[in-house]
Amino acid sequence: MPRIRLDLAYDGTDFAGWARQPGLRTVQGTLEDALARVLRLDPAPRVTVAGRTDAGVHARGQVAHVDLPEDAWAAVPGRSTRPPEDALLARLTGVLPRDVVVHRTRVAAPGFDARFSALRRRYAYRVADRPDLRDPLRRHHVLWHARALDAAAMHAAAVDLVGHHDFAAYCKPREGATTIRTLEVFDWERPTGGPDAGLVVATVQADAFCHSMVRALVGASIAVGEGRRPVDWPAGLLAGRRRDPGGAVVPPHGLTLEEVAYPDDAELEARARQTRAVRVAPGPR
Amino acid sequence: MPRIRLDLAYDGTDFAGWARQPGLRTVQGTLEDALARVLRLDPAPRVTVAGRTDAGVHARGQVAHVDLPEDAWAAVPGRSTRPPEDALLARLTGVLPRDVVVHRTRVAAPGFDARFSALRRRYAYRVADRPDLRDPLRRHHVLWHARALDAAAMHAAAVDLVGHHDFAAYCKPREGATTIRTLEVFDWERPTGGPDAGLVVATVQADAFCHSMVRALVGASIAVGEGRRPVDWPAGLLAGRRRDPGGAVVPPHGLTLEEVAYPDDAELEARARQTRAVRVAPGPR
Repeated sequence: MPRIRLDLAYDGTDFAGWARQPGLRTVQGTLEDALARVLRLDPAPRVTVAGRTDAGVHARGQVAHVDLPEDAWAAVPGRSTRPPEDALLARLTGVLPRDVVVHRTRVAAPGFDARFSALRRRYAYRVADRPDLRDPLRRHHVLWHARALDAAAMHAAAVDLVGHHDFAAYCKPREGATTIRTLEVFDWERPTGGPDAGLVVATVQADAFCHSMVRALVGASIAVGEGRRPVDWPAGLLAGRRRDPGGAVVPPHGLTLEEVAYPDDAELEARARQTRAVRVAPGPR
Repeated sequence: MPRIRLDLAYDGTDFAGWARQPGLRTVQGTLEDALARVLRLDPAPRVTVAGRTDAGVHARGQVAHVDLPEDAWAAVPGRSTRPPEDALLARLTGVLPRDVVVHRTRVAAPGFDARFSALRRRYAYRVADRPDLRDPLRRHHVLWHARALDAAAMHAAAVDLVGHHDFAAYCKPREGATTIRTLEVFDWERPTGGPDAGLVVATVQADAFCHSMVRALVGASIAVGEGRRPVDWPAGLLAGRRRDPGGAVVPPHGLTLEEVAYPDDAELEARARQTRAVRVAPGPR
């Protein structure tokens, strides 16, 4: 059963998030239905994703995988004239709506799993805090904030959160789920050039995130940026390990999943061999 | 009757163009209705614009003016606590939909007319011609073109059109209207950095444009960029002064009005004095 890796991007505006939900337009549902249509599969194949984004959150560098039946893969329409990966990509592009773009399809390296092989996820959160930077063409992916923000104070507050911590204060509670994460990067800057010139932009990177964590971290930063809270407040919140009922979660539309990083193919294969070895070894009962 | 200059931006996606049309959502209608609401004017005041953009065309640097009755201007809500320009801007921002942003309001310099004082208009047209550059977040303002384009050939073809010419070959015919224009800049480039990195981007600047001219110029460029037409074809078309029935007009959504340039205030005033002098001087009958 060949496993296919899909690299994709989407505008989250008109989706009720990644995860398939009955009766709602979701990215997962849209992608699975497109695969089913192109490969004539019923029921639709199940897609596994690196970052299950919430409603309204966008992705530029999302990664997913799907396991296809051998016969469906052997019969990808158009594969007589080109490699099956290219044929699948062309057909998918033909049936997907314009707010989902699959950039690449390829047979995954042995041991690859879009969710469990991911080493880290990187998100960006974009804020326009000056009227002249309010661009109606970007209103669906940049938060408009009517008060000026102190990006330097936000950055100073953010770097104190970096490291291996219990992020319970920034997680929506889920029974039994760990809230311990390694926050690798949490930067705020106001770029002077490039696509985000003038905006206040967060880069947030971790091994994994708990639910609504990025938006809670950004909410705490904005309280500092407005001067409503001192620079050491977000770190104090973290240390308390209790979700602040007054802690603001910012709107989803400023948030974009930019990149998911994986080990290289050799490392993936080595990991897969190791896992198999552990699985077959007789363990203590 | 004070004349107010408005600097604004809009996402043209959900508008039937600038010009007010009964029963349709237009930028002019939306802006005039917002002014009427804020200033409690009935009928709504009439707004004059620099560039009457078509349906689907965007604007970042659009300029308009409106003449307000003295009493309405004296009674701008909120002007007791701040300058009337700021009060008007704040109120307009409060009632406008999110796809129209007024960036600035100010009392116009004497002699200023958003349409007739404009020295030049600058448009950009953006094309993504590589699958990896297809960004669903920008699908409403970047044209997706499935075939790779030769930007250098497009540029070579474009610069030959610069100058004072009869652009009849690139204008939708309108009875009695001149098609003579001065095309000041017509560049194609593939920026290596900035917001448009990797895209193929046209900069088109002229004293004024006839209807659908930019989109016809871009259509001719794309024929060259694809290799369907030789580099000297767009200039040949121009020289023929006849609209090519097969000449493609590209879709509107790749087009954005970026900037409108005006003389400085002293120059505007001098021009206005001159015009008045001409008007009152006894002329030959």
